[in-house]
Amino acid sequence: MTQGLAGSDVQRIVVVGGVAGGMSAAARLRRLDETASIVVLERGPDVSFANCGLPYHVGGEIADRASLLLHTPESLRASLDLDVRTRHEVVSIDRDARTVVVRDLAAGTDETLAYDALVLATGAEPIVPPLTGLDRPEVRTLRNVPDADVLRALLDAGARSAVVVGAGFIGLETVEAFRHRGLDVTLLELAPQVLPAIDADMAALVEAELRAHDVDVRTATGLVAVEDSQTGSAVDVVLSDGERIGADVVLLGVGVRPSTALARAAGLELSPGGAVVVTPSQQTSDPHVWAVGDAIEVIDFVTGARGVVPLAGPANRQGRIAADAIMGRHVASQPVLGTAIVRVFGVTAAVTGPTSRKLTAAGVEHRVVHLHPGNHAGYYPGAESIHLAVIFAPDGSLLGAQAVGGAGVDKRIDVFATALRARMTVDDLAELELAYAPPFGSAKDPVNMAAFLAQNVLDGMLTTWSAADLDSVLDGSVLLLDVRSATEFRTGHLPGALNVPHTELRDRLDEVLAAAAGRPVRVNCASGFRSYLAHRVLTAAGVDSASLDGGLITLRAARPDAPIVMDSAHEPVMAS
Amino acid sequence: MTQGLAGSDVQRIVVVGGVAGGMSAAARLRRLDETASIVVLERGPDVSFANCGLPYHVGGEIADRASLLLHTPESLRASLDLDVRTRHEVVSIDRDARTVVVRDLAAGTDETLAYDALVLATGAEPIVPPLTGLDRPEVRTLRNVPDADVLRALLDAGARSAVVVGAGFIGLETVEAFRHRGLDVTLLELAPQVLPAIDADMAALVEAELRAHDVDVRTATGLVAVEDSQTGSAVDVVLSDGERIGADVVLLGVGVRPSTALARAAGLELSPGGAVVVTPSQQTSDPHVWAVGDAIEVIDFVTGARGVVPLAGPANRQGRIAADAIMGRHVASQPVLGTAIVRVFGVTAAVTGPTSRKLTAAGVEHRVVHLHPGNHAGYYPGAESIHLAVIFAPDGSLLGAQAVGGAGVDKRIDVFATALRARMTVDDLAELELAYAPPFGSAKDPVNMAAFLAQNVLDGMLTTWSAADLDSVLDGSVLLLDVRSATEFRTGHLPGALNVPHTELRDRLDEVLAAAAGRPVRVNCASGFRSYLAHRVLTAAGVDSASLDGGLITLRAARPDAPIVMDSAHEPVMAS
Repeated sequence: MTQGLAGSDVQRIVVVGGVAGGMSAAARLRRLDETASIVVLERGPDVSFANCGLPYHVGGEIADRASLLLHTPESLRASLDLDVRTRHEVVSIDRDARTVVVRDLAAGTDETLAYDALVLATGAEPIVPPLTGLDRPEVRTLRNVPDADVLRALLDAGARSAVVVGAGFIGLETVEAFRHRGLDVTLLELAPQVLPAIDADMAALVEAELRAHDVDVRTATGLVAVEDSQTGSAVDVVLSDGERIGADVVLLGVGVRPSTALARAAGLELSPGGAVVVTPSQQTSDPHVWAVGDAIEVIDFVTGARGVVPLAGPANRQGRIAADAIMGRHVASQPVLGTAIVRVFGVTAAVTGPTSRKLTAAGVEHRVVHLHPGNHAGYYPGAESIHLAVIFAPDGSLLGAQAVGGAGVDKRIDVFATALRARMTVDDLAELELAYAPPFGSAKDPVNMAAFLAQNVLDGMLTTWSAADLDSVLDGSVLLLDVRSATEFRTGHLPGALNVPHTELRDRLDEVLAAAAGRPVRVNCASGFRSYLAHRVLTAAGVDSASLDGGLITLRAARPDAPIVMDSAHEPVMAS
Repeated sequence: MTQGLAGSDVQRIVVVGGVAGGMSAAARLRRLDETASIVVLERGPDVSFANCGLPYHVGGEIADRASLLLHTPESLRASLDLDVRTRHEVVSIDRDARTVVVRDLAAGTDETLAYDALVLATGAEPIVPPLTGLDRPEVRTLRNVPDADVLRALLDAGARSAVVVGAGFIGLETVEAFRHRGLDVTLLELAPQVLPAIDADMAALVEAELRAHDVDVRTATGLVAVEDSQTGSAVDVVLSDGERIGADVVLLGVGVRPSTALARAAGLELSPGGAVVVTPSQQTSDPHVWAVGDAIEVIDFVTGARGVVPLAGPANRQGRIAADAIMGRHVASQPVLGTAIVRVFGVTAAVTGPTSRKLTAAGVEHRVVHLHPGNHAGYYPGAESIHLAVIFAPDGSLLGAQAVGGAGVDKRIDVFATALRARMTVDDLAELELAYAPPFGSAKDPVNMAAFLAQNVLDGMLTTWSAADLDSVLDGSVLLLDVRSATEFRTGHLPGALNVPHTELRDRLDEVLAAAAGRPVRVNCASGFRSYLAHRVLTAAGVDSASLDGGLITLRAARPDAPIVMDSAHEPVMAS
């Protein structure tokens, strides 16, 4: 698989970039080869720092700055005999000569280093849109320890309000950090939802948590400029809707782009998006140059699409693979699932595999089921709901999963990520044997339950309707049947819905059939389970029936504008 | 696959046993068929009760008895049109006539019910050894809600001390419950370790937690008799070593056996151990009779061995499979992994797949690696160690895993259980892409780290030694090299070990080679990582080297009798 050099020929290795992927490569290289010269060149002041911990340091959860610095050049010399040079920037590569020119940023001197193998782990850099005022000192990005230092200094100096631009992972983590520090926070997101890494109906649950923590969430809203303040704050942020918001600090979290100027100048093959193109053994278009981490193009495991996935896990594994390949070992990086997780106050949101939105865009036929099981047995104290969306192909192959909730979200997504890597089907998921005792799960784990639901959809036991059908089911062409209890029904229901609790359905079937008057019946309950039971009864009675996928919980998340009425008088109320 | 009847021919279904597997079958049958008559006959007073929650009710964590009763005959009639009869015992089966005789235990009357399909979910019953005094009222088992009622009554009446016989799942959960209620607890286990479902070196960590909570743990100790008290307690428990221990309550948790008297009397095929033999579609030797749950024989996924695995998860899934098969659907239960988990005070212990002990007994060649990673990034507050043992075949196939620790144990075992079901190799595990943010994991998750370790063992990067080699490494034939810091070394080390911190090893290599004087070097550190680095240095220097698997943490757990000395004067101290 690898087209690596013979390991014994590689005596001089230069690694450009000393964080996740680069440092993983360097450490593994030393373990594979005790005698090679391994030089790690890092432009910044730190190597091997905990970049994923930066927001928690800003927020104060990680109080000790030193704990972010996992290694130093000295410790890496002592334990792994690595020659690590910080504040050393590689300014050019001469591929023919196999040399790099490295600049000592402190001394201002240049040196030429020869290599047998070169590893590019140049990472990615925050995108700063070309807008007025983003060069002001209050406008920051968060990518390294000095960035965190600056943000902490701004907060320590008395910043009272913040605007966070971008509701992706780093944006949300920084929102949380700023709220922990007591700032008023406005969150801008150009997309119509927060957390575009998950589907909108799941992201709505995260947005609700943000609002519950007094974050002023502005979706479908862009940043236009940062200007002098008219309000007494440090600056004013001008929004795409014309509003001006005062802020003492502005955090740009609108994404990153691969840092590949060096690779581009050296003539290495880049993707249209500017990422370094590599083989499965992390080799670039030059057989003496490898590349890993946020700087490279990867392949999506499900869709096969090429793109950039800046995540720490793949970066670290790619570093290890590159080291093995350089030393002539037969290895291959796998396509990327994009498994990711974020904690936002009391909720956790996680995903593996592509979203339904991305699959639709890629033309991949798929189905989605939603469910809301407890994280563990309901009779054991402290159970919390996990909101789960599972995506699968018509042949039953798992394509992805998303979860939002509290405890146990990470576990279920990791199970799905493992199953996805194994190309399991929903039949396989139904048979998973997961660890069960009341504090940890249920005899039928949420993963099993999701699989049962998917099986039912695929084999025709269950026909579902969803938010996409809302407008058509409200036009009078179907009977809306709400099978919750009368008490639940009174708290809010779809307009015109007939309430027959599922426990009374068999006795009142004639009443339902009369109300349907030959029309199809569209059933709902709170979460989708009771409506499934009702659907089976109705189907057996010969009715064209469908059950609301995920129940009203999912519908209201997917369509916050859904008309919900409080009683038979049908006054509309806002969905909460 | 199934040899089921045509679904439409099945109009009369009788289910014997109304808890996990039986109730799953009944509920699924109704969802599959609205018109069939489904009668559920339960000998006890409750159906669908939370048997796994019983210890927590005894201990008071689940305060409300009613929360254990998940359904009633009335609720099941209303939601699923099931005819559920509690305190109804099936006393015989006439397979030729396809009838059962059912006794109404309250009324004392018998009735004959005809069936097209019969589901036996008769469960298992606690083993009560044929010893003197076990019929005393203070000697109890814990299998159903009335059992829990009796135990609670004994505690409420002032029981001060307990003896728990058997350190399996139910035994340990009951120990915890009794301690929560303030009782003095002695735990007897005939095996030389607690929790025989995991290997001894992992179980030692559970035993330490029991002792830390003042449980008097007596391994390799049996129960001989329960006699009149000589000490003022309700009874005296006589141990196999002759000691007498006073107790106000004695809990028997020595295991269960399949309740198959009914199946046996009906002439159904049973295993040598007395379990009902079934096909993958849960069909017994009679094509009109299915069986599920603790009463049946299952196949071990890894070894292929046949046996009994009384776990709620498989029971519930088997019930669903049986229902599908009865209705003519093509389904097959999978062999059983034996995934299980137990919380014991502050630690959680979990397992999937067979133990190393069981594999050895079955003649299955395998390797084990031990490691002690944090449950999440160490720089994020609150990280705890997970003690992990991963078992794999010489070809890299995963065979099983065990974990003991706090948060995150359940997640990792569920990932391993999913990987095991998918027949993943350690190479696959190395490439798993699990959800990472600092509160949840590490960029290289413990599962990835275990896989890296296993890869290193398989490809020769790492040679390990273990507790099994302890005696031979202490005989002077090797140099013991401890590469921890001098401070750590002073807290206790193997006798005769040379201390060279791994960060000094390259500079002091001549000193080490001189001390070895041609002998092999056996390296150790605390957890096995630094000794791996040292092993690579020594191997490159041409030394016959091996690194202690899992470090001193694992060695001391595996061999509590290992000689540990405090300083160079070599005074032995007890391992803590």
